[in-house]
Amino acid sequence: MHILVTNDDGVQAPGLLKLAQEMRTLGKVTVFAPDRNWSASGHVKTMDRPLRVRAEILADGSPALSTDGAPSDSVALALLGVVKEKIDLVVSGINPHENIGHDVTYSGTVTAAMEAVIGGVPGMAVSLHAPDDFHGTLDYRAAAQVGRRVAARLLAGGLPEGVFLNVNVPYLKQDELKGFMITRQGLRVYRDALDARTDPRGKPYYWIGGEFPTGVDEEGTDYGAIKAGYVSITPLQLDLTARQAMEEIKKWIWE
Amino acid sequence: MHILVTNDDGVQAPGLLKLAQEMRTLGKVTVFAPDRNWSASGHVKTMDRPLRVRAEILADGSPALSTDGAPSDSVALALLGVVKEKIDLVVSGINPHENIGHDVTYSGTVTAAMEAVIGGVPGMAVSLHAPDDFHGTLDYRAAAQVGRRVAARLLAGGLPEGVFLNVNVPYLKQDELKGFMITRQGLRVYRDALDARTDPRGKPYYWIGGEFPTGVDEEGTDYGAIKAGYVSITPLQLDLTARQAMEEIKKWIWE
Repeated sequence: MHILVTNDDGVQAPGLLKLAQEMRTLGKVTVFAPDRNWSASGHVKTMDRPLRVRAEILADGSPALSTDGAPSDSVALALLGVVKEKIDLVVSGINPHENIGHDVTYSGTVTAAMEAVIGGVPGMAVSLHAPDDFHGTLDYRAAAQVGRRVAARLLAGGLPEGVFLNVNVPYLKQDELKGFMITRQGLRVYRDALDARTDPRGKPYYWIGGEFPTGVDEEGTDYGAIKAGYVSITPLQLDLTARQAMEEIKKWIWE
Repeated sequence: MHILVTNDDGVQAPGLLKLAQEMRTLGKVTVFAPDRNWSASGHVKTMDRPLRVRAEILADGSPALSTDGAPSDSVALALLGVVKEKIDLVVSGINPHENIGHDVTYSGTVTAAMEAVIGGVPGMAVSLHAPDDFHGTLDYRAAAQVGRRVAARLLAGGLPEGVFLNVNVPYLKQDELKGFMITRQGLRVYRDALDARTDPRGKPYYWIGGEFPTGVDEEGTDYGAIKAGYVSITPLQLDLTARQAMEEIKKWIWE
């Protein structure tokens, strides 16, 4: 098995290293990730400029590749041939913060897995629910072990076409995790606020600021699961059609 | 009614102007769009740098606002308070090329409408299916009139919560359009290819190249509708959960 590991925090992020190390127990691993942080950068296909690919050395001495493109560009470049050997699975992460609810279209971590599926390769994203106020060095061990178990299961059983997995892990020790829960995408509650400032030359500029987003703690959802101490596994698809709304809109009368 | 008009091609794009002019027949229009092209840039929330907002004058002499952020940032900034007056509808476009199938998560045009819905305001995206080999000045009149008719209907009837509209218009004259079809998201066929080159200093770089994407011409889909000469209206949602896959994954046995 040949696993591509990527992320949206940059190739030297500690969450990626821990994930890559766990994935090596399942097969050959190629690390190919952005050369910088791309959080909340969405599903990108860079077509207006060429992309560079550089050789990197990770903190454990292992080789990796980086690009100045987005996480989804890393996956596209790899699948288009920058990585010569056939790829069986793309694993993205470990993101230090959960990717739940509406985050999934903003998230570089999740859209990397989305890009894998578009390229015909199974994909999964792994994110940790670190406390909002956490400062210091995060322990990615439990989340990496979860990632390995989900990847092993995915490689053994496969996924329906067009489906990829969004895995979120509570910030607990391995033996404190209550188990796995298969969830639906819940509701994210953004608490963004406009932070208007004035530059040294008297001109206005704006930060998208505000508090860290929260979620609606509902049973059966991604956020509900991690709040209750379970690993959340949400199968996601590329088809965004609101099928129930189709019938309603078919009744529209056109003036 | 107060309508925010945005796009992903930049505030001075001709498709935006035509759309804004049609929208003015329905109410007050505020134009707020990126200051440059953001095609295929995805669903972005810019948090690592502050954003600028500038006053612009469009080609018809009307005022507008631009930002150095992404299309979704324009919408977020407007809804967070850069635009003071309450916004009733966000209309994004007109994109010169169709946004169908998997395009919807890459597309700045569509993710601007997505951002509107996340902010609690109805959203719709309008794209034109210009021929792939078209060069010259596109005629946006029919697509703008379609946009106005859909917007009028949306403002009159509303949409279910979390649903936004992805409208694609064939490149035909108004009286050649066969009508409106409510569709599901179809399958996009990407034909990307790696174009590896060497710079003047002997170092490699990579373009994501290849042919323009096509689609699977299937009845009931976005691509099927526009290929048959109909306006395609696809209701999209923020929930990407693959519900059918949930049952299958619940059967997974964890080693």
